[in-house]
Amino acid sequence: MKRVALCAILVGTAMAASMAGAVPVHTPSDTRLIAAIKAKPAVKAAFAALEAEHDQWVENIVTLTEIPAPPFKEAARGKAYADMFRAAGLTDVEIDEAGNVLGMRRGTGKPGGKLVVVSAHLDTVFPEGTPVTVRREGSRLYAPGVGDDTSGLATQLSLVKALIASNISAPMDILFVGDVGEEGLGDLRGMKQLFGKGKYKDRIAAFFSIDDSSIDGLTNGGVGSKRYRLNFKGPGGHSFGAFGLVNPMTAMSQTVVDLYNIPVPKSPKTTFSASVVGGGSSVNAIPREVWLEVDMRSESAAELATLERAFLQTVDKAVAGENAARSTKDGVISVEKKIVGDRPAGSTAADTALVRQTAAAYGAEGVAARLSFSSTDANVPMSLGIPAITIPRAAKGERGHSTDEWIDVSAPESLKVKRMDLLAILAAAGYR
Amino acid sequence: MKRVALCAILVGTAMAASMAGAVPVHTPSDTRLIAAIKAKPAVKAAFAALEAEHDQWVENIVTLTEIPAPPFKEAARGKAYADMFRAAGLTDVEIDEAGNVLGMRRGTGKPGGKLVVVSAHLDTVFPEGTPVTVRREGSRLYAPGVGDDTSGLATQLSLVKALIASNISAPMDILFVGDVGEEGLGDLRGMKQLFGKGKYKDRIAAFFSIDDSSIDGLTNGGVGSKRYRLNFKGPGGHSFGAFGLVNPMTAMSQTVVDLYNIPVPKSPKTTFSASVVGGGSSVNAIPREVWLEVDMRSESAAELATLERAFLQTVDKAVAGENAARSTKDGVISVEKKIVGDRPAGSTAADTALVRQTAAAYGAEGVAARLSFSSTDANVPMSLGIPAITIPRAAKGERGHSTDEWIDVSAPESLKVKRMDLLAILAAAGYR
Repeated sequence: MKRVALCAILVGTAMAASMAGAVPVHTPSDTRLIAAIKAKPAVKAAFAALEAEHDQWVENIVTLTEIPAPPFKEAARGKAYADMFRAAGLTDVEIDEAGNVLGMRRGTGKPGGKLVVVSAHLDTVFPEGTPVTVRREGSRLYAPGVGDDTSGLATQLSLVKALIASNISAPMDILFVGDVGEEGLGDLRGMKQLFGKGKYKDRIAAFFSIDDSSIDGLTNGGVGSKRYRLNFKGPGGHSFGAFGLVNPMTAMSQTVVDLYNIPVPKSPKTTFSASVVGGGSSVNAIPREVWLEVDMRSESAAELATLERAFLQTVDKAVAGENAARSTKDGVISVEKKIVGDRPAGSTAADTALVRQTAAAYGAEGVAARLSFSSTDANVPMSLGIPAITIPRAAKGERGHSTDEWIDVSAPESLKVKRMDLLAILAAAGYR
Repeated sequence: MKRVALCAILVGTAMAASMAGAVPVHTPSDTRLIAAIKAKPAVKAAFAALEAEHDQWVENIVTLTEIPAPPFKEAARGKAYADMFRAAGLTDVEIDEAGNVLGMRRGTGKPGGKLVVVSAHLDTVFPEGTPVTVRREGSRLYAPGVGDDTSGLATQLSLVKALIASNISAPMDILFVGDVGEEGLGDLRGMKQLFGKGKYKDRIAAFFSIDDSSIDGLTNGGVGSKRYRLNFKGPGGHSFGAFGLVNPMTAMSQTVVDLYNIPVPKSPKTTFSASVVGGGSSVNAIPREVWLEVDMRSESAAELATLERAFLQTVDKAVAGENAARSTKDGVISVEKKIVGDRPAGSTAADTALVRQTAAAYGAEGVAARLSFSSTDANVPMSLGIPAITIPRAAKGERGHSTDEWIDVSAPESLKVKRMDLLAILAAAGYR
């Protein structure tokens, strides 16, 4: 989940306003439905199992955190997680082509029907070699990735074990997933496999990602993003001797200037950023190559597409302009436009059953759900029109995406979150 | 000397046209004057000494090349060179505050009068740790820095020894110098010391830099340069959450676009280059800092100053424009303008006695002098109105500023160049 990371980068910008939504209105019937589920003896047994398993949950966080899972290198952690799924009693445990770990809790309905997917991601943002030993101080655990999303993985496992210990089967199957590629350049490839090519792809009725570092977050908006790395190339030459030749720096700069003149709507919120730049080798040489990384985002897939088109026209115009403005006798300016990120936009309406019932589940534990937009695994199903949300990990934390990352594993609060997550999942799976 | 470096960087741009000047017209009286000097028995003895010393000259090139002299770290080579000056018989040998090695050949005039400076630079462009062992293949020596300007240092030493062996004293004192800081960010600091603060600064009537890799180059034009590193800073923020805040990338880009719209004259040739850029930390963050390196050059000091003023206005305007265009609630864009290079422009007119007589000296050895513009140690005296030129090192070479650098130390050609250099210096020092 990206929100914590954003905060770490931000330091003092006003993001809260744009990310937080209104408190959702769940209806009295949603409240009654959740209350009825909560009152069932089997659910009470499941809650007791969660409580009894608290220390093991903490141990699992430590165990999993200490298996490094850098982007594109989630295999070791995935294998360990698959073993945990098997030991917990899930069926059909496998690791798919992308590296996602899948495990099934069969429902009471007939095989092959609609199912609910619950997921937490295996990957962290931290590169290979980052020390990942967990340090404990009171109720806090410190380690890179300990919260995002390793605590989500452990919480998912606790929910699985509680369901099985209390012998709960919902009408629908529940597919539990430890997925790959949620972070950065992973570009949601685990979800793209699951929803685009996986064997369950046509059966998914609802999706939960356990990946919110707060207690009350309910992410029902997926900010889409498209990221480009532009490589502007030209002939280069000596700054004095070759003066007058085309310069890729100028084409890059004109692109930035023009990008910042593209109008975008305030709502649905649509943004761009010329973020990272580099190029040139020596102050006394016209550069041969200059590159620029640009990020574009929108709450609306259509607005994102409109912005992207305008941006790409801007790039071509800037290159053509430079080739017209200066000499191309030793070569022209060319540009390579490489997509380095493509996260679909989407949202799950606040009045869908999934959002309303989940908000009621939070309410049953005394938590007022806070709707938000973010970029999570849920973006992929949202973009496909499948109801999807992101819910808390059960361990409040801060400093995600930094090596100072920490979480608080205090029992009362973490148990509260696990209970509300379980209620929401059961409701979505048709358990009554 | 920068010319070889340019070629190494260039690969296929047309610099030759801009660097080469017309063949100078030396008068018949210049020719006669040089012929008269050349006919003197003492000068013939000096030529014989040069010939006898050829192998030692090659050995000195090897010895000096193998003492690394990276930018700002010329001390070890300087110390060795000072010892060579003493051993050769120069008086008043010292190392000045900047690290220049100075040694005097007293003239026949009264002490404290005008003098001629001859110089070669100690520093190379190569960083510490670059292997500098010289490899010999036939008449070629291969090593980083072997030509630029180590062969110039060795040639200067041969000229000193030839003068002393033949007991020549010109009317004027001749101050021989092994100077520091010629290359890159060294920024001519050796020359700035010599002409700005040194104890001989008010006595210098003419200046020779022995630093041309060709046989026929006679650099009488000093291309001036001013180099800036601009650091644009802003508050930064998340690309989505903080959208709307000022971005240093935009201010940098507007600077480049506007710079490339500043008109500059073709003659005196005046140029600019937005050469190196960097900044930003992550594609999903508005950068906190973006930097840009810009090079400006001119054959005319006045035109360089005009360009610099326009450029600095452009920078300020771009920053102000960005602060006006977007929100500054979390901070404004600021810019730090750091001068990272300042080489004064200047020239020595083709009809001055120094240029005419030197061209006649080349002619006496059958070489047609080729006037050129470049950036060398001679820039500093040129900018002060002191007649100054750069003359050949006596070892033709290529690939300067690359680790493939090589020179040819064949005796006939190198001796020809040493003879013409010596004739030119003697003429400038009033020897008749």
